[in-house]
Amino acid sequence: MADTERKLSNGRTRIEFATDPSRYRHWKLKVDGDIATLLMDVDEKGALFEGYELKLNSYDLGVDIELADAIERIRFEHPQVKVILLRSAKPRVFCAGANIRMLAGATHAHKVNFCKFTNETRNGIEDASAASDLKTICVINGTAAGGGYELALAADHIMLVDDGSSAVSLPELPLLAVLPGTGGLTRVTDKRKVRRDLADAFCTTEEGVKGKRAVEWRLVDEVVPGSKLEEAVGNRAQEFAARSKRPAGAKGIRLEPLKRERTANGADYSTLSFEIVDRLATVTLRGPDAPPPASADAMVGEGAQFWSLRLARELDDAILDLRVNEFDVAAIIFKSAGDGEQVLAYDRFLDANQDHWLAREIRALWKRVLKRVDVTSRSLVALVEPGSCFAGTLAELVFATDRSYMLAPSLPSPASGGGLGRGSDNKPPATLALADVNFGAYPMSNGLSRLASRFLATPSDVDKAKAERGTMLDAEAAAALGLVTFALDDIDWDEVRVFLEERTSFSPDALTGLEANLRFGGPETMESKIFARLTAWQNWIFQRPNAVGEEGALKRYGTGQKPVFDTKRV
Amino acid sequence: MADTERKLSNGRTRIEFATDPSRYRHWKLKVDGDIATLLMDVDEKGALFEGYELKLNSYDLGVDIELADAIERIRFEHPQVKVILLRSAKPRVFCAGANIRMLAGATHAHKVNFCKFTNETRNGIEDASAASDLKTICVINGTAAGGGYELALAADHIMLVDDGSSAVSLPELPLLAVLPGTGGLTRVTDKRKVRRDLADAFCTTEEGVKGKRAVEWRLVDEVVPGSKLEEAVGNRAQEFAARSKRPAGAKGIRLEPLKRERTANGADYSTLSFEIVDRLATVTLRGPDAPPPASADAMVGEGAQFWSLRLARELDDAILDLRVNEFDVAAIIFKSAGDGEQVLAYDRFLDANQDHWLAREIRALWKRVLKRVDVTSRSLVALVEPGSCFAGTLAELVFATDRSYMLAPSLPSPASGGGLGRGSDNKPPATLALADVNFGAYPMSNGLSRLASRFLATPSDVDKAKAERGTMLDAEAAAALGLVTFALDDIDWDEVRVFLEERTSFSPDALTGLEANLRFGGPETMESKIFARLTAWQNWIFQRPNAVGEEGALKRYGTGQKPVFDTKRV
Repeated sequence: MADTERKLSNGRTRIEFATDPSRYRHWKLKVDGDIATLLMDVDEKGALFEGYELKLNSYDLGVDIELADAIERIRFEHPQVKVILLRSAKPRVFCAGANIRMLAGATHAHKVNFCKFTNETRNGIEDASAASDLKTICVINGTAAGGGYELALAADHIMLVDDGSSAVSLPELPLLAVLPGTGGLTRVTDKRKVRRDLADAFCTTEEGVKGKRAVEWRLVDEVVPGSKLEEAVGNRAQEFAARSKRPAGAKGIRLEPLKRERTANGADYSTLSFEIVDRLATVTLRGPDAPPPASADAMVGEGAQFWSLRLARELDDAILDLRVNEFDVAAIIFKSAGDGEQVLAYDRFLDANQDHWLAREIRALWKRVLKRVDVTSRSLVALVEPGSCFAGTLAELVFATDRSYMLAPSLPSPASGGGLGRGSDNKPPATLALADVNFGAYPMSNGLSRLASRFLATPSDVDKAKAERGTMLDAEAAAALGLVTFALDDIDWDEVRVFLEERTSFSPDALTGLEANLRFGGPETMESKIFARLTAWQNWIFQRPNAVGEEGALKRYGTGQKPVFDTKRV
Repeated sequence: MADTERKLSNGRTRIEFATDPSRYRHWKLKVDGDIATLLMDVDEKGALFEGYELKLNSYDLGVDIELADAIERIRFEHPQVKVILLRSAKPRVFCAGANIRMLAGATHAHKVNFCKFTNETRNGIEDASAASDLKTICVINGTAAGGGYELALAADHIMLVDDGSSAVSLPELPLLAVLPGTGGLTRVTDKRKVRRDLADAFCTTEEGVKGKRAVEWRLVDEVVPGSKLEEAVGNRAQEFAARSKRPAGAKGIRLEPLKRERTANGADYSTLSFEIVDRLATVTLRGPDAPPPASADAMVGEGAQFWSLRLARELDDAILDLRVNEFDVAAIIFKSAGDGEQVLAYDRFLDANQDHWLAREIRALWKRVLKRVDVTSRSLVALVEPGSCFAGTLAELVFATDRSYMLAPSLPSPASGGGLGRGSDNKPPATLALADVNFGAYPMSNGLSRLASRFLATPSDVDKAKAERGTMLDAEAAAALGLVTFALDDIDWDEVRVFLEERTSFSPDALTGLEANLRFGGPETMESKIFARLTAWQNWIFQRPNAVGEEGALKRYGTGQKPVFDTKRV
């Protein structure tokens, strides 16, 4: 169970999430009118780490980063696309799933974060369907094994070729002694609603299920003879496109490369920066420096420069960067700087244009980024200080944190000559402001808004907060509404330092488990079950010698030696 | 992380679940009219294993077995009791939670099963409230730490003495680097609905919360000055008793000791037996050998001998025995023998008397036993063979399994001279029968009946099955209704052997994770979240060196040495 770090290939020292189609090595994106085809064609030699090859359309994080990028680009750059055809460019194989050699050699931390990101990517495909009516049809001509079938499960419609050999399977348990952990088990039971005993048979059968039985067991939506495949795919794509409400004539915007400069202990983006000191990453978000554009057309004109979109993309990149490249970071501290009224103006602008495809996509992106924050295994803290602009969409980050502290003006003291806010730096006192967007636009994975999750016991407190939309709330008012954890004055503000020091002294694992529970009170959804029931069990298995020990199945796969199992059932 | 087995104390070789108040070492049960007082008074020297003492009302599995027994006895032996006062007999301490030395030295398998049983016991306290209107008031005079507060959380009402020192706390994370895993985190968020950031503050504060703040944060229901405690407890008990609909004049039945004889590789009870061969435990349930009694009074007269109750208690004991004493068992195979019509007659009898307290308690016990089966980490298999009596309540076990096989009559062959069922043993062909009880009386932890869980995709199939209540369904009919996984004839029946052999060849851990996912499709409840989100994360942490390694917090607690943590956040 040695957990030694593997080397990134090509001399890279960090995993990068930014990419674009001109740099894809594993996917081909073709857009033809309202149909996009996303062809999986994994480059065997294009692995993210050294030491394995990506045979048979197997994937690693690098392959999935391109997939996630492609889905985002279809949404923003090709709004006219109504249907994505997800296909393989390889003969006789759709996708062999996560690369086993990669998994066998990955650290526990990488395995966990790899699965988290791939889960988010598949959730993103479903979000495109639910939020943007962008439907995905998966065409399986060959084998879809393990993560390959899990990818198919994210689609709205699965077509399987009926050729006597094309099959879907989840062979993780019999072959590798791990779970189909990229949503597989949960989508089988909760999305496809496969009968539990048939699901058991399916998930313990290495060779999987093909042909008519795959339809009968609800594993795919239809089987098609090979000779009629292209015709059937074309028809199905047209049917789905005809039903989609996507904008017909819309012209997309270009998702330009992010501007990011690495600094000594962090990075600067155009709308935020982060800095890591003593295992604490402070992310400072900057409010807009200009009012929102005058019209939706002007927003399209600004494109990826539009402040809300720019910040969402940059925040997403920063969170991912911290997640997979900075394992030692114990907590992420959100700060902000700017004019809260301007942030509210952007939120009002997006509200006013909510039927515009781009406004809708920006809001949906923020929803996904905030969900990514929710499942980030770092303690999350917000510091609401003078000069900050936690309003509307940015206030949502305060509600996403495990704890928030807000600086209250102390009583004027003759010595300080004022004492508003933090000493005499002339910044206005800290405020927090709510907007419509805080009451439903950004549901968490449990289906509730962060404020509804926060006030599970007292739903009337959501209404009380709602009545204060648009008000710049000072610390006293924010605390009275229950919007921040603690409001402290200058004198007590040192408690924040003590808290952060204490936080970094705790067991990182125990914090991960604690936060994964406390953040998600109330109902569960298929999505939240993937990150809870499924992921937590998988992470447990990823620690067990039967999977990852020297004699475990993951380590012995492909060696010709059988795994040796401890037969105890726990 | 050596996982060596600890020695049971007093020369015991197996953990026994059967007990009664005359043998309690840790609890005192006093019944006074409609109020029962359950006093925790743990005997330091009464630990289940060698090597630790149960100081400060800390507990191990042995203590919890007595608690579970006491709750059952109040329900069956003292039906007139309306309120349980849960209190400590020790000064200045309510309960210090699970014994840390016990946890630190326990095998992973024991830790997991200890938590599972304690969770079931706390769920049982809540079930007494929900199903039988038997309310629990927890009186905390002193400290309720960790599992001590988790026990309190199971109560309907928590009273805390306001004396400047009595407090509730969940110090597991800061002290031990593990979670409050006996429902603690989930009950804080989902039952008490504590605001998530306050819950974070509470669960990371070693000393906990006391006095008024404990009420403000919703951690307890009221604080009471020490001088007024007895008066307040008396008043509260009377109030709860006045609201309870428990039967006033009912006289209980005695839960006589179970009859069980150990055999060479199993055990014989009066209504079932089990036998372990090649890591497979076959549990054979026997149907009633006489019709149900003529009246509810006659049922009370039969008391613990009443077939339904006897079988429920014996099955519960057998499942628990297999769970904690037979870790090598890979699968539990349920068979049955008897007359299905008689089983249905008992179910109809209980239906007809559903307003009688004893009938209600028997049904509620079956519900809990079936839930215990659901969360048992062994592959569950049902074999429906000629001579079996899987009908009504017993059919529920078939729906609880991961897979069921039913023997179908083969075509008559001249050679066999018949071929009905399994050869020529003269048994009638296998049948399966449904009853009202299969459609709501036994919800799973997800809140659905097993048939509703089974037919998540096609609720109309539940109605189709419902229409067949009372019919003795042969294999073909049962398979057509989707009630069994596979119907096989004599010739194919060997597939069962192949399946079982294969099952025992798989990784036990992977099966545990797989089954914990596939068994619980659809919605989640607080109860199901405890066994999923909370338990799975806790089990993961129980594998992590930060908790259980030689330098981990659990191992180092009390040694004066600080734990050393791997600082990676995973």
